[in-house]
Amino acid sequence: MERGSSLPARASGSAGTDPAALRVDAGSRSPVRVFAPASVSNLGCGFDVFGLALEEPGDEVAVRGVAGSGIVSLTVAGGGGRVPGDPASNAATIAAQSVMHRLGSDAGVAVELRKGIPLASGLGGSAASAVAGAVAADALLGGGLDRTALLECALLGEREGSGANHADNVAPSLAGGFVLVLPGRTPQVVELPTPAGLTLAVAHPAIEVETLRARTILGDTIPLAAGVRQWGHTAGLVAGLFREDWELIAHCLCDAVAEPLRAKLVPGFAKVREAALGAGAAGAGLSGSGPSVFALCRGRTVAERAAAAMAAAFCDEAGLGSDTVVSPVNRVGARVLETG
Amino acid sequence: MERGSSLPARASGSAGTDPAALRVDAGSRSPVRVFAPASVSNLGCGFDVFGLALEEPGDEVAVRGVAGSGIVSLTVAGGGGRVPGDPASNAATIAAQSVMHRLGSDAGVAVELRKGIPLASGLGGSAASAVAGAVAADALLGGGLDRTALLECALLGEREGSGANHADNVAPSLAGGFVLVLPGRTPQVVELPTPAGLTLAVAHPAIEVETLRARTILGDTIPLAAGVRQWGHTAGLVAGLFREDWELIAHCLCDAVAEPLRAKLVPGFAKVREAALGAGAAGAGLSGSGPSVFALCRGRTVAERAAAAMAAAFCDEAGLGSDTVVSPVNRVGARVLETG
Repeated sequence: MERGSSLPARASGSAGTDPAALRVDAGSRSPVRVFAPASVSNLGCGFDVFGLALEEPGDEVAVRGVAGSGIVSLTVAGGGGRVPGDPASNAATIAAQSVMHRLGSDAGVAVELRKGIPLASGLGGSAASAVAGAVAADALLGGGLDRTALLECALLGEREGSGANHADNVAPSLAGGFVLVLPGRTPQVVELPTPAGLTLAVAHPAIEVETLRARTILGDTIPLAAGVRQWGHTAGLVAGLFREDWELIAHCLCDAVAEPLRAKLVPGFAKVREAALGAGAAGAGLSGSGPSVFALCRGRTVAERAAAAMAAAFCDEAGLGSDTVVSPVNRVGARVLETG
Repeated sequence: MERGSSLPARASGSAGTDPAALRVDAGSRSPVRVFAPASVSNLGCGFDVFGLALEEPGDEVAVRGVAGSGIVSLTVAGGGGRVPGDPASNAATIAAQSVMHRLGSDAGVAVELRKGIPLASGLGGSAASAVAGAVAADALLGGGLDRTALLECALLGEREGSGANHADNVAPSLAGGFVLVLPGRTPQVVELPTPAGLTLAVAHPAIEVETLRARTILGDTIPLAAGVRQWGHTAGLVAGLFREDWELIAHCLCDAVAEPLRAKLVPGFAKVREAALGAGAAGAGLSGSGPSVFALCRGRTVAERAAAAMAAAFCDEAGLGSDTVVSPVNRVGARVLETG
């Protein structure tokens, strides 16, 4: 899976960067290309706070210096013509523009976005586009922004793409891992340990769920009793991950808040989840707001079985075809594939 | 602080116990005496799910065999005459009776309860009485019930005392430690690690807050956004405890759900909390439903400073005297002081 160099764990900030060094010569180099992976957020109990990166699929952004100033052009491959082609409303270019603004660069930049993550799939596609855009712009300009700065820039892009303002997809897509994101003006990202063998199975059925609709369905309040279950389970899941206690992990991988309301948006969901558990998954649920369903498994063999069982259930219960992915937690996050 | 022998970590169950062995000879022995410690529940973000045991204060229950059958008498010391003297409505005797019922014992038992924990103080007094009653009855009868059984019996007693049906006070009072209690018909207790030096300061002002009133004030629903903060923080607090990351612990020691509504029940609360933080506490908040305020501190010196600062603030802001306790996490829980 190593397709390129990983990001430095903590690059230096931009405070001392010489603005003159941030200019790029128009057309003088081959593009900088960046891959940012899909992610599974929520993970049962952790609505808006847990997320993890997959190895694939992912979105790619290529940027190169051109004549002019700012984002001069945007071309999009994939996404069936439904990804915004206007740089002012595209997650990747908004994030890239935010990086350029932060670096004080007025370089001219041409952007190509290649969507590898299906639209409205619940796999963090907007987040991946935004992360790839931010990292690519920073690499092109030699900005050396640190992770927090890149996270903030990518969040601006993802907000445009999904309406969300939380980093549970952006953070793992950027830096990899299974993370806890603590809400705040600058979200705090806490990387969690994962037991050896932890493997994800994901089934993505051939329907779409719009993130905004899935959010509206939740309303603004929840029952206190459901809240108590939820914050007990997030605490327990973290303890389970630290202790490699699969029984505790399995016990806590459930969602008392969002899934009961969102399940109806995904035909066959209950049976698909049941199929994953029947195949030996420790837990299963909606990936983000769906329609993709994740299963968290102990070992690749179980995950492959769970993926097949979920695909079969989507077919049997709802007549839906589905793509499946089996992946460990991606520890790297966004990767520069070509340095230009 | 070692006042007696600790409970066995996991005693054998009662399945194979010979009922004949569970009779006690009336008046033949000195009483069995048990101490069960006070506890701090909620701990900021963990409403109804986190609790920890203090070394003191605590309640004591003495039981001895007498003529007759069942709980023959109950005497109560402490509590200003306001602790129920009817065995059918007292937390300690309900728990003891539940143990006797589970063991199939029709022995006659006299119970003495000595309240060391102030009433309606937010320090788990009903839970401690119930735990002491359950452990004492089991020890008197040689029942050898395991922790889960003792927890269930004590919960029946605490339900009578406080109306609550969650084990965030009973579990630490019984077995010690800083615990996560996962709700369920039989609550699952997960012991959490604590960083070296973790010390509690508690200030108990001279007022009372009735648990039932403090619960009613919460209503049945909470804002979704507050819920997200809360389950992010419980997850983060557990990660902080495992990593001994005091910065993360401090960040997560806040309550987005109950404290904002309950603070008004405790005059001067905001300033008392501020005083604890000003004295160097990592975090502070209501102990249970209050009025006691806890401060979680790194090291005894800081905790002593925080306790004094909280007491001074209660006096300055609300004209209230207060008792203070400084204690590490009690790792033992309930202790048999005399075996009869």
